[in-house]
Amino acid sequence: MDTVTSPADAVIAAVRAFLGDRLSTNASVREQHSRGEDTTTPTLPDAVAFVETTEEVSRILALCHQHGVAVTPFGAGTSLEGHVNPVRAGISLDLSRMKAVLELNEEDMDVLIEPGVTRQELNAFLRDKGLFFPVDPGSHASIGGMCATRASGTNAVRYGTIRENVLGLEVVLADGRVIETGGRTRKASNGYDLTRLFIGSEGTLGVITKVRLRLHGIPEAMSAAVCQFSTLAAAVETVITVMQTGIPVARIELLDEDQMEACIRYSKLEGFAPLTTLFLEFHGSEASVKEQAESVEAIATDLGAQGFTWATDAESRNRLWQARHDAYWAAVALKPGHRGITTDVCVPISRLAEAVVQAKETALASGLTSCIVGHVGDGNFHCLILFPEGDQEGLERAWALDRAIVAQGLALGGTCSGEHGIGMGKREFLEQEHGPEALAVMRSVKVALDPRGIMNPGKMFRN
Amino acid sequence: MDTVTSPADAVIAAVRAFLGDRLSTNASVREQHSRGEDTTTPTLPDAVAFVETTEEVSRILALCHQHGVAVTPFGAGTSLEGHVNPVRAGISLDLSRMKAVLELNEEDMDVLIEPGVTRQELNAFLRDKGLFFPVDPGSHASIGGMCATRASGTNAVRYGTIRENVLGLEVVLADGRVIETGGRTRKASNGYDLTRLFIGSEGTLGVITKVRLRLHGIPEAMSAAVCQFSTLAAAVETVITVMQTGIPVARIELLDEDQMEACIRYSKLEGFAPLTTLFLEFHGSEASVKEQAESVEAIATDLGAQGFTWATDAESRNRLWQARHDAYWAAVALKPGHRGITTDVCVPISRLAEAVVQAKETALASGLTSCIVGHVGDGNFHCLILFPEGDQEGLERAWALDRAIVAQGLALGGTCSGEHGIGMGKREFLEQEHGPEALAVMRSVKVALDPRGIMNPGKMFRN
Repeated sequence: MDTVTSPADAVIAAVRAFLGDRLSTNASVREQHSRGEDTTTPTLPDAVAFVETTEEVSRILALCHQHGVAVTPFGAGTSLEGHVNPVRAGISLDLSRMKAVLELNEEDMDVLIEPGVTRQELNAFLRDKGLFFPVDPGSHASIGGMCATRASGTNAVRYGTIRENVLGLEVVLADGRVIETGGRTRKASNGYDLTRLFIGSEGTLGVITKVRLRLHGIPEAMSAAVCQFSTLAAAVETVITVMQTGIPVARIELLDEDQMEACIRYSKLEGFAPLTTLFLEFHGSEASVKEQAESVEAIATDLGAQGFTWATDAESRNRLWQARHDAYWAAVALKPGHRGITTDVCVPISRLAEAVVQAKETALASGLTSCIVGHVGDGNFHCLILFPEGDQEGLERAWALDRAIVAQGLALGGTCSGEHGIGMGKREFLEQEHGPEALAVMRSVKVALDPRGIMNPGKMFRN
Repeated sequence: MDTVTSPADAVIAAVRAFLGDRLSTNASVREQHSRGEDTTTPTLPDAVAFVETTEEVSRILALCHQHGVAVTPFGAGTSLEGHVNPVRAGISLDLSRMKAVLELNEEDMDVLIEPGVTRQELNAFLRDKGLFFPVDPGSHASIGGMCATRASGTNAVRYGTIRENVLGLEVVLADGRVIETGGRTRKASNGYDLTRLFIGSEGTLGVITKVRLRLHGIPEAMSAAVCQFSTLAAAVETVITVMQTGIPVARIELLDEDQMEACIRYSKLEGFAPLTTLFLEFHGSEASVKEQAESVEAIATDLGAQGFTWATDAESRNRLWQARHDAYWAAVALKPGHRGITTDVCVPISRLAEAVVQAKETALASGLTSCIVGHVGDGNFHCLILFPEGDQEGLERAWALDRAIVAQGLALGGTCSGEHGIGMGKREFLEQEHGPEALAVMRSVKVALDPRGIMNPGKMFRN
């Protein structure tokens, strides 16, 4: 009598034949691939495939397509919205070993990389070339994952999100076919924009196996500044005025008084008060950087800023931005034994003051500890909400607060996600934002490219 | 006995019932909608529908979908690649009367318009608000058409193409359903990027009925400069160095010696020689504009520029840019009784010198009169090729030269179209650029959104 083999077992046996021990069914490896840095309920994949080439990805997808087995791409595992949780088991496709820098064109300022390269690794590679890659989410994310979630960060106000910084992709489709999208030119009008279709598709349409990025020249001069305000509204008003004046700030980040207190403690930021604070950075020529900073200082002072501190040397600049970078950990450290979830609302800049003030009030009324940080030049802010680790009821209260803040943002013409993506946590808002017909178009694109629904099922769309 | 009614007649009768005399079967109206500013063989539509509302568009598309009748969207009719030629007859959908500016948000610097508004009309509307819309193709194109062809122009090097300047769209799908894409925020990670899917889709996926654009503040200061070179290579080398240095030029345009001679004659540009020439523009604060111009002057002088002329007053600036804007007409005026076609190759900037020099040599060898102008900061240039009006054999020689120049551009890692689109004239290159699998993905998206193939058939794809 034959043994009945499950579809997943059939795929595992076939993949093991060419992947060898890079196909793992080890319990702790599967556990490490059961979710990201999110708070979803972990799910174990049937196996984890540590791929090293496009061809391996293609063969695995062709097999999964044939057998109807789910595939969940996994990069650095830093998703905050459940993207890497393999909710229908199957294969967790770990791309973190695909770390080659394949081609650097210094004259054209572009680079071709594999998806497992992180931004920090890329910038380390570029350091002596006079070039840098500006998109900087808070975590050590992989660039493939950043493409999949349409990530951004603190530099987006000046350099754009990853959407504006990708020239082209190599993508393995659900059935194993391999395509190239885009090209090497700065612009093109040559058919549907498949590059932008895959950017932000959250692994639901295919697997990104190469990325061609646009780079930028390291500016001649950089300086940072900090200014503090007695009210949130005054800080936000300063941001709006700076943006409307067209000052090309490279970064303009807001930390509310609770976040600032957390950062002062955690990062030993001396000389600052626990007040609503803006961190700014200016890029350009020496003269232009000076002029930009003076213009912002004049605006901020006019709107009631208390002090305007400069940081022109690299060391003080780095200390500041490291503190901003560690804001999440600083907030979590406020309450030992706690974890955090974070909202990702983005609103039109004219509604930013209302959105941030409402979020703060709603958070205070909830009784939960929270801090607000924001990429406010883009109208995007995060409310970090703390809950006791392992406390399911606390987690549910935190999510209820998250949803309340999102609803407020949507009512102000905003979106539930500026940069983290939909994943599992924001699916309920997708239809609300786009309406049923636009969502139907998204679904029809999904069906056209992944007819058997194997690519990252359970993400973006409900059911 | 019943009269057999054709599908087109059935649609015409049904549309006339609600459009009245805005549905025209008049011969001269159909003739005006038989092609754009291209050299394709004109085709008459069965009727022209002058629509005024989204609802009318929706009803017409639903009828055409039901009866399998082709729909060819028509904006200002300025396409150079046959986009508005109704090759399968049916309905020419004229959107040029949809000219309302629906909503201006000065604080957020965005505007919601109907698709028939031209860039000149929009900028006239914005003049006293301190805002402008930068995307400026050479013609008086409609903004709906600019979205459909992923247009750009002289400002793209600084402000991006239309792709980077659209926040969202309203689109009527092939079957009449109406969707909204995008939103009001500067960035979002909230589902598939349907906005970018429709931008550059050349009317093959749906009809754009509203556009929400990102605007920019009119800079505090602007200045223009002209520098001339004895060789094409030196001019292009100057462009490459300026781009690599990261000087944020607003415009950097090249005119070869033949084009410059044409412009001197046509636009009475005094004080310039018929040499390869760069036209530049700088935007920013007074100090920054001065600094940018001085940096470019130093680079250009170093690379052998002969003279560097400044134009800081608005009148001389406008005269210069009007001359650049009229370059096409200046070239056509070189040979009375001639018309022109134009290539639209875009290459990585490191290959620009080769591409332009090769194009010039190939054009000279062909014996046809031609001029080169280019948005060279983006690696995009146009070779205007003249042929005697009405001379079919001359037109075919001109197209043969066009194809030879495109093939050279592709061999240098470029694309057949930087900004004009594929239409009918560049279809043969689409598969060559993307490969059969990527083209298959484009086709599967087309089938998913327009299963009956009524939307602008015969464009972008062959057969």
